[in-house]
Amino acid sequence: MKKTIIIILMTFISLGGISQTRPSELGIPFGVLPTGQLNSITDVKGLIVGHFTKNEGEHIRTGVTAILPHGGNLFQEKVPAAIFVGNGFGKLAGVTQVQELGNIESPIILTNTLSVAAGIEGVVNYSLSQPGNEQIQSVNAVVGETNDGYLNDIRGMHITSDEVIEAIQNAKSGPIEEGNVGAGTGTVCFGWKGGIGSSSRKLPESLGGYTVGVLVQTNFGGNLQIAGVPVGEKLGKYPFKDALEKSDGSCMIIVATDAPVLERNLERMAQRAMMGLAKTGGIASNGSGDYVIAFSTAEGLRIPHSVPAQLLQKAEFLGNDDMTSLFLAVIEATEEAIINSLFAAETMVGKDGRKVEALPKEKVLDWVKKGNH
Amino acid sequence: MKKTIIIILMTFISLGGISQTRPSELGIPFGVLPTGQLNSITDVKGLIVGHFTKNEGEHIRTGVTAILPHGGNLFQEKVPAAIFVGNGFGKLAGVTQVQELGNIESPIILTNTLSVAAGIEGVVNYSLSQPGNEQIQSVNAVVGETNDGYLNDIRGMHITSDEVIEAIQNAKSGPIEEGNVGAGTGTVCFGWKGGIGSSSRKLPESLGGYTVGVLVQTNFGGNLQIAGVPVGEKLGKYPFKDALEKSDGSCMIIVATDAPVLERNLERMAQRAMMGLAKTGGIASNGSGDYVIAFSTAEGLRIPHSVPAQLLQKAEFLGNDDMTSLFLAVIEATEEAIINSLFAAETMVGKDGRKVEALPKEKVLDWVKKGNH
Amino acid sequence: MKKTIIIILMTFISLGGISQTRPSELGIPFGVLPTGQLNSITDVKGLIVGHFTKNEGEHIRTGVTAILPHGGNLFQEKVPAAIFVGNGFGKLAGVTQVQELGNIESPIILTNTLSVAAGIEGVVNYSLSQPGNEQIQSVNAVVGETNDGYLNDIRGMHITSDEVIEAIQNAKSGPIEEGNVGAGTGTVCFGWKGGIGSSSRKLPESLGGYTVGVLVQTNFGGNLQIAGVPVGEKLGKYPFKDALEKSDGSCMIIVATDAPVLERNLERMAQRAMMGLAKTGGIASNGSGDYVIAFSTAEGLRIPHSVPAQLLQKAEFLGNDDMTSLFLAVIEATEEAIINSLFAAETMVGKDGRKVEALPKEKVLDWVKKGNH
Amino acid sequence: MKKTIIIILMTFISLGGISQTRPSELGIPFGVLPTGQLNSITDVKGLIVGHFTKNEGEHIRTGVTAILPHGGNLFQEKVPAAIFVGNGFGKLAGVTQVQELGNIESPIILTNTLSVAAGIEGVVNYSLSQPGNEQIQSVNAVVGETNDGYLNDIRGMHITSDEVIEAIQNAKSGPIEEGNVGAGTGTVCFGWKGGIGSSSRKLPESLGGYTVGVLVQTNFGGNLQIAGVPVGEKLGKYPFKDALEKSDGSCMIIVATDAPVLERNLERMAQRAMMGLAKTGGIASNGSGDYVIAFSTAEGLRIPHSVPAQLLQKAEFLGNDDMTSLFLAVIEATEEAIINSLFAAETMVGKDGRKVEALPKEKVLDWVKKGNH
Repeated sequence: MKKTIIIILMTFISLGGISQTRPSELGIPFGVLPTGQLNSITDVKGLIVGHFTKNEGEHIRTGVTAILPHGGNLFQEKVPAAIFVGNGFGKLAGVTQVQELGNIESPIILTNTLSVAAGIEGVVNYSLSQPGNEQIQSVNAVVGETNDGYLNDIRGMHITSDEVIEAIQNAKSGPIEEGNVGAGTGTVCFGWKGGIGSSSRKLPESLGGYTVGVLVQTNFGGNLQIAGVPVGEKLGKYPFKDALEKSDGSCMIIVATDAPVLERNLERMAQRAMMGLAKTGGIASNGSGDYVIAFSTAEGLRIPHSVPAQLLQKAEFLGNDDMTSLFLAVIEATEEAIINSLFAAETMVGKDGRKVEALPKEKVLDWVKKGNH
Repeated sequence: MKKTIIIILMTFISLGGISQTRPSELGIPFGVLPTGQLNSITDVKGLIVGHFTKNEGEHIRTGVTAILPHGGNLFQEKVPAAIFVGNGFGKLAGVTQVQELGNIESPIILTNTLSVAAGIEGVVNYSLSQPGNEQIQSVNAVVGETNDGYLNDIRGMHITSDEVIEAIQNAKSGPIEEGNVGAGTGTVCFGWKGGIGSSSRKLPESLGGYTVGVLVQTNFGGNLQIAGVPVGEKLGKYPFKDALEKSDGSCMIIVATDAPVLERNLERMAQRAMMGLAKTGGIASNGSGDYVIAFSTAEGLRIPHSVPAQLLQKAEFLGNDDMTSLFLAVIEATEEAIINSLFAAETMVGKDGRKVEALPKEKVLDWVKKGNH
Repeated sequence: MKKTIIIILMTFISLGGISQTRPSELGIPFGVLPTGQLNSITDVKGLIVGHFTKNEGEHIRTGVTAILPHGGNLFQEKVPAAIFVGNGFGKLAGVTQVQELGNIESPIILTNTLSVAAGIEGVVNYSLSQPGNEQIQSVNAVVGETNDGYLNDIRGMHITSDEVIEAIQNAKSGPIEEGNVGAGTGTVCFGWKGGIGSSSRKLPESLGGYTVGVLVQTNFGGNLQIAGVPVGEKLGKYPFKDALEKSDGSCMIIVATDAPVLERNLERMAQRAMMGLAKTGGIASNGSGDYVIAFSTAEGLRIPHSVPAQLLQKAEFLGNDDMTSLFLAVIEATEEAIINSLFAAETMVGKDGRKVEALPKEKVLDWVKKGNH
Repeated sequence: MKKTIIIILMTFISLGGISQTRPSELGIPFGVLPTGQLNSITDVKGLIVGHFTKNEGEHIRTGVTAILPHGGNLFQEKVPAAIFVGNGFGKLAGVTQVQELGNIESPIILTNTLSVAAGIEGVVNYSLSQPGNEQIQSVNAVVGETNDGYLNDIRGMHITSDEVIEAIQNAKSGPIEEGNVGAGTGTVCFGWKGGIGSSSRKLPESLGGYTVGVLVQTNFGGNLQIAGVPVGEKLGKYPFKDALEKSDGSCMIIVATDAPVLERNLERMAQRAMMGLAKTGGIASNGSGDYVIAFSTAEGLRIPHSVPAQLLQKAEFLGNDDMTSLFLAVIEATEEAIINSLFAAETMVGKDGRKVEALPKEKVLDWVKKGNH
C-alpha cells in the first residue's frame, strides 16, 4: 500500500517537474557547446520576443509570436539579415526584399497560414505609426506561418491586425514562454503537440564569445529522434506508419546572433538551421514550409534608413574563416529549440474535439538515460 | 485663318487618335514577331483580366488588377508557373511556394505597396469561398505591387479585401483597358504617367503557333527609349538629371503563354522579360521592385489539387531547344506592353495637388518617324 | 579455458568480419525504409560505377570515381538532373548548365580538388570520341572533388585525363567497392579515414516501389554521430576539440533514382541529402564543399540530344505530393552511405608519413548495442 | 570640284578611321554617363588584361583572355566578387565558390568551350607556383568560355595550360586590343564577326567619382540594335530569319569597379549587365551561355587569405541607396563594350573555309546619323 502511494507521488512529481523543466536540465544532451544564460533566443542582448495567444472556445487555437531584433525603431535602424528556404511550401512574406537588400526593417511575425495578411497589416500599421516614421510609404513585413488547422479553426481567420500589434507590444527580454503559446498555440510536431521552443549557444571567448539564439515554431513531422534515441520508431509514430504523423505542417526558425556577421554569412548560418532540424528527425516533407530567418543584432552593423548620399557604411565583421563555430552553434541550438518545444507543449483538445497528446516525456527520458550517451 | 483652323483640327484629331490608339498602330515598331489578335495578354486563350480602379477625391489614386490564368477553380486546377526576381526591393507575396512547387493556385493580384495584405486577404477569402474549396486550409496568394505613393495617399491603405475580390470578379476576356486603370491608376514611369499596359506575340506556325501575352504595371524609371529613340534624353528626363525621374518605383510583369512549357522553362521566359524592360531604358534601380510572374495555360499541364497517390502526371511539353522563339516573344511583348502603358496613361493630378504629365506622344511619334526605323 | 579461446576466436572473426561487413549487417539501424538488394547506388537499375585508384609510393593517395546514370551514350540520351549546393566552397564543374537545362549529359566524375581539370578533360575526350558524337562541339562535364591533400601529394596533380577515362571504362553494375578506393582513396572524415560509401532504399510497392541510391565521397567533419550515439564526443574527436578533426574537407553526394522525377523535384531530393549528412554529425563547416547531384534514370524521362523542332517531349512523372517518401529515402540512404564509407575505410599512411586511423568500429558497435536502439 | 575631292577624301579617312576607331568616337551615342579615360575596363586602376591569340593555319581561330583584378598575388589578396547567370547553358568554372565565399582568388580566364580544362589547369599551375603560395592546396579557378566552333577547330582542343599562363603573363594596364584577339579570336556575334570589346563609365564626383569597366567576349545572337537603330532588321539578319544568325553562342561579361562594393551589391551590378546586353538586341537564346562576373578592386575591401582567428574584417563600403548610378554605368558600358567588339572585329575566314563578315560599319554609321539621335 505504502509502495503504491509512493509511486503515485513520484509520478505526480515527475509530471509536474517535467512540464516546468527543460530537456537539458533533465540531462538530455545537445552537443558540445555551452548554452547562454537563459538557453533562449533572448540571450542575444537587446532582442525581445512577444506572444499573443488566442485559445478561445472549442475551436480557436492559434496566436502570434513577434521577434524584434532590437527594441528601437527597426525601420530607421535596420539589421543585416538573410533568409534560407528549407522547403518553400509556405507563405512567408517579405522574402525577396530581405534577400535583395540584406536587411530586416520591421518586427518578425509568426502566426498561422491564413493570417499572414493580418500579420502584414499589423506590421505595416505598427511601422507607419511609430514615431519617426511619419513619412515612410513602404515597409517590408516579414511574416512567417505554419498551418495549425488540425486543432484550430484556421478558415475562420481569427487573428486580427490589432492582435499582431499586441504581440509586438508584448515583446520583452528575459525568459520566454514555450510550448502552447503565441504562434505555437495550435501546432503539431512529429504527431505530438508542438509549439514554440527556444535555445541558445554561447561560444567560448577563444572563439569570440558570441551568442547564437534560436526560436522555432514547430509544426512539422518525420522520424523523431531525441539525443540519438529513435523516439518516433519506439513510439510507433513515424512517416508512412501513423495516420497522425503526416510529416506535413511546417517549421519556422529564427536565428539571431550578436556576432558581427553580414548577410551572406547570415544566409550560411540560416542554411545550417535545417541541419539542426534534420537531427531531430525532421524530413522537410513535401507539404512542410520550412524557412530560416537569420539576423545580426551587432550594433556596428545597423543600417540607418536615411544616410547622406555617397556616405560610406563602415563596419567590422567576421570573415568566412570564423564561421564554423557559429554554424555549429546554429545546429545545436536549433535541434535543442525544437525538442524544447515538444517538452514544453501540453496535450491540447481543439477543433472538432480533436486531441493531440503531449510527447510522453517520461518514456523519452527513460530511454535517453538507458542509452547512456 | 483657314490654316490655323486646319492645324487645330489636326491637333484635335491627333490628340484624340493617340489617346485611343496604341503605338504599334501609330507605326512604332517593336521587333519582328507578329502580335496576337488583340495585342494583349488576353490573346492567351482562357486567361481573364479584371480591374478595380479607386480614383476618389483629391488624394486616392490607386486600384487593383487581377489576372486569372483560367476562369475555373484555380486552386483545384493549378497552372505551372515560375517567378523571376529582377530586383527584389518589393513585397511580392507568394514567391517561395511558386518556386518550390512550380505552380500558381489562385488569381494573381497587382495593387499598391501597402495594400498587399488586402490583396492576400482578398485572394484567401475568394479561394476559401469558391465552390469545391470547402475543405481547403491553405492557399498561396500571389500579390505584387508597386508604390503609387507619389500620386496616391498610400499610407491611407485605401484598398479593401472586398475590392480585391471585385477586381477578380471583374475579370473577363477580350480587350483590356490600359493606362490609369486598376493597379496602374496612380503609377509613374520614366517621370511620366505610367499604368497598365499589355501586348502579345503569336509565333508563326513553323515555330509552334503559340501565343505569349504580357501585362505590366509600370512604375519605374531610367533612360526612356522608344523604338530606339532616346526619348528620355531628348526630353531631359533621365536618371540623375530630372528630379521627378528618380528611377525608383517598380515594375510588375505578368507573362502568360498557351505554349506547353513547364516551370523551369517558364522561369527562363520570365528572366527574359527583364530584357524587354531594359530595351525601354529601364535600369532596375536600387529602389525598383521588379518581378516577373510567368505561367502556362496549356490545358494538358494543369495540376489537379487532389490526385490518387502514386498516380503519374502525364504531360507533353516543349524542350529546351524550342525556347528561343518564346524568349524573343517575351522580350518584344514586354517592351511593347511598357510603351503601351505610357501611351495609354493620361495626365493625372493626385495627392497634395501633385501632377504627373502624360508622355508627350506627338513629339515621340515625330521623332520615331524621323528616325525612319 | 575453453571459454577464453572461444572469446578470442569470436573477436578474431568479429574483427575480420567488420572490415568486410557493413554497418547495417552488424545491426546498426538507419531508419525505417528497407534497403535495396545490394544496399548500394547500383540498385538503381542501369546505373554503373567505376573506380580508378592511385595509391602509389609514399605520397600519392588519390583516385577517380565515375558514376554513369546509364551505360549508353549519355550525351545523346541525357537524364533529368539537379544540383543542390550545401556549401559552395568547392570546385564542382558543370553546375550552371545542369541547373539551367535540367539534365546531365556525361559521366559524373569525382576526384581530388586540383584534378578537376583532368576530370573535365577526361570527360570531354571520352564524350567527343564516343560513337555517335562525331559532330558535337560542346559537352558539360560534371566533375566534383574533395581535398585529399592531408594524405595525398595533391599539389603534384597526379591524376591524368586518361585515368579519368579509365575510371569511366571500369564502370559496372553490381556491388561496388567502398572505403579507400577511387576518389575516396585519400579522404578523411570526422578525423577518421573516410572514403567512398554507398547505400540505397527501396520504397514499398504502396509508395511506388521506387529505388533511391546514394554514393558519397566523404572528406568532411563535425561531431560524429552513429545511429544516435555521439561517437565524436565519446572518442574526444569533435569540432574545436581535436586538432585532426578540423571539420574541413568536403562531401560529394550522388543521389540516383529510378523514380520518374523531373528536375525541380530532383533538386528537392538533392536538398534532403544534406539532412542525411546532418544526421551523421556533419556541420558543413566553412571550408567544406558539400554538393549533391541528383538524377533520374527513368527511361521515359530521357532527353534525346537531337529532336525535330517543335516536337513535344512526352513524359509521365511524379507530382509534388508523392515526393515525401523519396525525401525520406534520400535522408536515410545518405546517412547510411556516409557511415558505410567510415566502416569500409582502413587505416592509411600517406604523404609525409601522416597516418589516419580507421574508425574504431568495435567500440562503435559496442556503444550502439548498449544504446539498445 | 574641290568640294567633291574633299568629300572623297573625307570618305577615305572615314573608312580608314572606322577600322581603327571606336563607335563613340564616330558619334554613336551610348547613354548619358561619361566614359573613363580609355573607355576600357583598364580604366579601373590596378586591373590588368592579357590576351593570347591562336590564329594558326586554316582551322585554328581561338585564344585566351585573362583579367586580373590586381597585379599582385590574388590568392593572398582576394577581391570581393559575384557572378550572375544570365543563361546557364555554359561551362563557367568556379561559380559556386565565388557565390558562397563572395570573392575571387585567381586570374579570370576566358577561352573556348572545350578548353575550360586547360584554363583551370593553367590557373592552378600559375597559382601554385606564385611566390607565397608554396603551401596552398586549393585554388578556385574562374574560367569562362564561349563556343568558337564555327570558325575554330574546337574539337582539336588547341589551347594548352601553358598558353593560359602566357595570357596571364601578358596582362598589362593601358589600352587593350579589341576584336579578333584572345578569347574573341573566333567568335561570332549577331551573325557578324564578334570578339573582345571593352568600355567604361566614370561617375561624376557628385555620385562618388567611381569607375566601372566592362570587358566582353561576344559570341551570341539576337536582333542587333545599335544606338536604337534596328540594324539586324535592316540587314536582314535576325532570329528565325538568317541561317547564320542562330542566336546561339554565348556572352561572357566582366564587370570591374573601383567603387567599394561588397559581394551582394556586386551581384546586383552583375545582373544589370544583362540589361546592357538586351539593349544591343541580345536575347539570351536557349543555347547562349551568358554569365557576368563582377568584382571590386577597392583596396580597402581586399580579403587576405590568412588572418588571425576572430580578427574582424574592417571595411567601408557603399550602401544600397548608392547603387543606382553604378547600375546605370554597368548597363551603358556593357552595351557599348558589345558594340565595340563588333566594330573592332574584322572579317575572318576559318575552319572549313567558313567566312564570317565584319559588321558593315559604314551602313551602320550612316543609319545612326540619319536617325539623328
